[in-house]
Amino acid sequence: MRTFRRLVKVDEAISVLLESFKDLEPPSVNVPLTLSYGRVTSCDVIAPIDVPHFNRSAVDGYALKAELTFNASRDNPKRFKVLESLNEIGQVQDHSIVIKVATGQFIPEGFDAVVMSEVAPEVNGFIEVSEPIPPLRNVSVKGEDVKRGTIIVEKGTIIGPQHMGIMASCGLTKVPAYRRIRILIVSSGEEVKRPGETLKGYEIYDSSSFIVYGLAKRFLSQPFIYPKSPISSAEEVLEALHYGLRGFDMVIFIGGTSVGPRDIIPQVLSKEGELLFHGVAMKPGKPTAALKIRGKPVFCLPGPPVSCFFSFIEIVAPLIEHMYGLKRSIKCKLRARLRRNVPGEVGSRVYVRVSLRESGDGLEAEPIATGGSSVISSICKAQGYVVIPEDVDSLSEGEEVDVHLLVI
Amino acid sequence: MRTFRRLVKVDEAISVLLESFKDLEPPSVNVPLTLSYGRVTSCDVIAPIDVPHFNRSAVDGYALKAELTFNASRDNPKRFKVLESLNEIGQVQDHSIVIKVATGQFIPEGFDAVVMSEVAPEVNGFIEVSEPIPPLRNVSVKGEDVKRGTIIVEKGTIIGPQHMGIMASCGLTKVPAYRRIRILIVSSGEEVKRPGETLKGYEIYDSSSFIVYGLAKRFLSQPFIYPKSPISSAEEVLEALHYGLRGFDMVIFIGGTSVGPRDIIPQVLSKEGELLFHGVAMKPGKPTAALKIRGKPVFCLPGPPVSCFFSFIEIVAPLIEHMYGLKRSIKCKLRARLRRNVPGEVGSRVYVRVSLRESGDGLEAEPIATGGSSVISSICKAQGYVVIPEDVDSLSEGEEVDVHLLVI
Repeated sequence: MRTFRRLVKVDEAISVLLESFKDLEPPSVNVPLTLSYGRVTSCDVIAPIDVPHFNRSAVDGYALKAELTFNASRDNPKRFKVLESLNEIGQVQDHSIVIKVATGQFIPEGFDAVVMSEVAPEVNGFIEVSEPIPPLRNVSVKGEDVKRGTIIVEKGTIIGPQHMGIMASCGLTKVPAYRRIRILIVSSGEEVKRPGETLKGYEIYDSSSFIVYGLAKRFLSQPFIYPKSPISSAEEVLEALHYGLRGFDMVIFIGGTSVGPRDIIPQVLSKEGELLFHGVAMKPGKPTAALKIRGKPVFCLPGPPVSCFFSFIEIVAPLIEHMYGLKRSIKCKLRARLRRNVPGEVGSRVYVRVSLRESGDGLEAEPIATGGSSVISSICKAQGYVVIPEDVDSLSEGEEVDVHLLVI
Repeated sequence: MRTFRRLVKVDEAISVLLESFKDLEPPSVNVPLTLSYGRVTSCDVIAPIDVPHFNRSAVDGYALKAELTFNASRDNPKRFKVLESLNEIGQVQDHSIVIKVATGQFIPEGFDAVVMSEVAPEVNGFIEVSEPIPPLRNVSVKGEDVKRGTIIVEKGTIIGPQHMGIMASCGLTKVPAYRRIRILIVSSGEEVKRPGETLKGYEIYDSSSFIVYGLAKRFLSQPFIYPKSPISSAEEVLEALHYGLRGFDMVIFIGGTSVGPRDIIPQVLSKEGELLFHGVAMKPGKPTAALKIRGKPVFCLPGPPVSCFFSFIEIVAPLIEHMYGLKRSIKCKLRARLRRNVPGEVGSRVYVRVSLRESGDGLEAEPIATGGSSVISSICKAQGYVVIPEDVDSLSEGEEVDVHLLVI
């Protein structure tokens, strides 16, 4: 069997990718606000108006003219007639009135402070104020929440409910967002069948395409399964490649990427463009390759489902996050204490699946015993994974580690 | 102004909801595997086949008949001829052969163990084995990953990439999943306008509908904005209610739910069904109401965007998670140390927005100074929130707290 000439480290692989596709970003589109959830902003979103665009009350209470209270005291309380609404204003001649306002309601013209209902209870249509109220007391001034012309959502933000809310509060109906990254998924192998077909002999179902499909969704992209997938010959590889380069932002081949006699895909592809790396010092996931073909990223991920899974998360996902210019990684991690020793492998980055459980003081991570990179049930049982760095030869029971979460 | 007769505690509100809608679950549908990402399984998914459904190699190496090695030793190594594939078997008469196998490849009939390439390097088409190899050494036996008839994905699981993979590995093309919970969103208020309209005078844009829309998506549901929203009269409330009860699983009214003169919605609705509670001891979010009308949950959430946000996350979301029978909450939390003292309010559960930053040893949570429940920018600046329980009067600088994440 051939071997990998040289394994690149995970960080090196990522650097090479980010450098090779430095300026690559998906096109920007205007997305209706309701469809913007989970999209990524393609530029800073600027507030077209002040929010609030008038002074409003920060409490339930009574709006008044502050200067009328300046000489009020406990011995000399100032008495105000309470009006239920602005409509009644015209009917009253003198200025000793207050207007009932609820939290968030506007402060009528000519009024500049609010006294809380609790402080000045209404009696027979009047309230008494027994201390001076400074102007703007309990008033949310115009632009306090959002100032016109300022950034309300930064470029590279994954749009969540709060961002939809702030854009709506400014009256926006469209959001400048990246078109989702379109990923073509091409699996390979003569023995590989699509789910739904009948297996004969030693055939197996294609599971890795669906893992990549789900991961592409998780990383905010739009996956497509190549219609002729799984493929096996060199001609089919090239046909899939050209199909992918025409209509997609990224092509991911699965399987046929190791160093066995039937592992032809990286070689076939490398004649069409630049091979960035083949072989990564990670376990599982070693037979991962990346190429730049006509300016687009093309990946070869290992066929075994667990290898494919980690290969995508650790190598492909950082490029996706880079293309979207994400301010913050989608990945989420927790601290937990290891419940057992786990061996690493000096020179490789090792990914250990763990299940989590609450203990008296904090989380505990239990490494899952596995039968290797084909055992897909191991990633279903896991709630997360722990990374053993290249220069660490093992992690010890009781050690506190970062657990990267696998659950959505 | 009227006041709330009695505030229910947050936990009590949730208990009442879960009890009132104990048996409520959305209908089950069969979803194509590729569309199953982020759906929730509506029953246990059972493996229809063994995976692998044949014995396969766990390593790159040579498949052999273990018994031929039983008397092998360093002094008396056993010599085997290497065949490249099964096809060549017919041509060889004696049993002293091995067959080259890659990781995941099947072990041919009559062979029962694999010796790793590293242990027995091939020389001129032959390998030598110098120790007894026990049967099944380096063999993944049939059903090792998944046993036919066992549960591969439990009911109530949010389907992620790994679950899609394991279902594909068993050949499944459809997933039994809950139809997404359909939520009708109805906002209210004479001064409230839809984004895109032109504001006059003291009108404001409806932001809370979009917050609820985004949160419904985050909690795996399917939101719809009522076509006539925002509404204001009692007749309109009833019209929206009946529209909602006909085609949706849940109706959420926004605004008009406090105790002011124009806050009519809970009263109007309570004539149509059972008022479960009105007024929750939480801050923000106090004027939250829930009803059971014709067996369906109907919520009234406060209009100010921040109140509405917490009201949904703390009161509505637990019911959604319950209806889906989720094994695990969607919410995710981290531990962090508070950077400042924050006051609570005994008797109420208080939600403090915080931003997070890495410090030398762990995360720090910085409380965000806010101008109240209308200041939507406060939830955009926050990466999470800290809960101050009803019986705690303040949290102290340096204290370690749970931060519930707001980012996706």
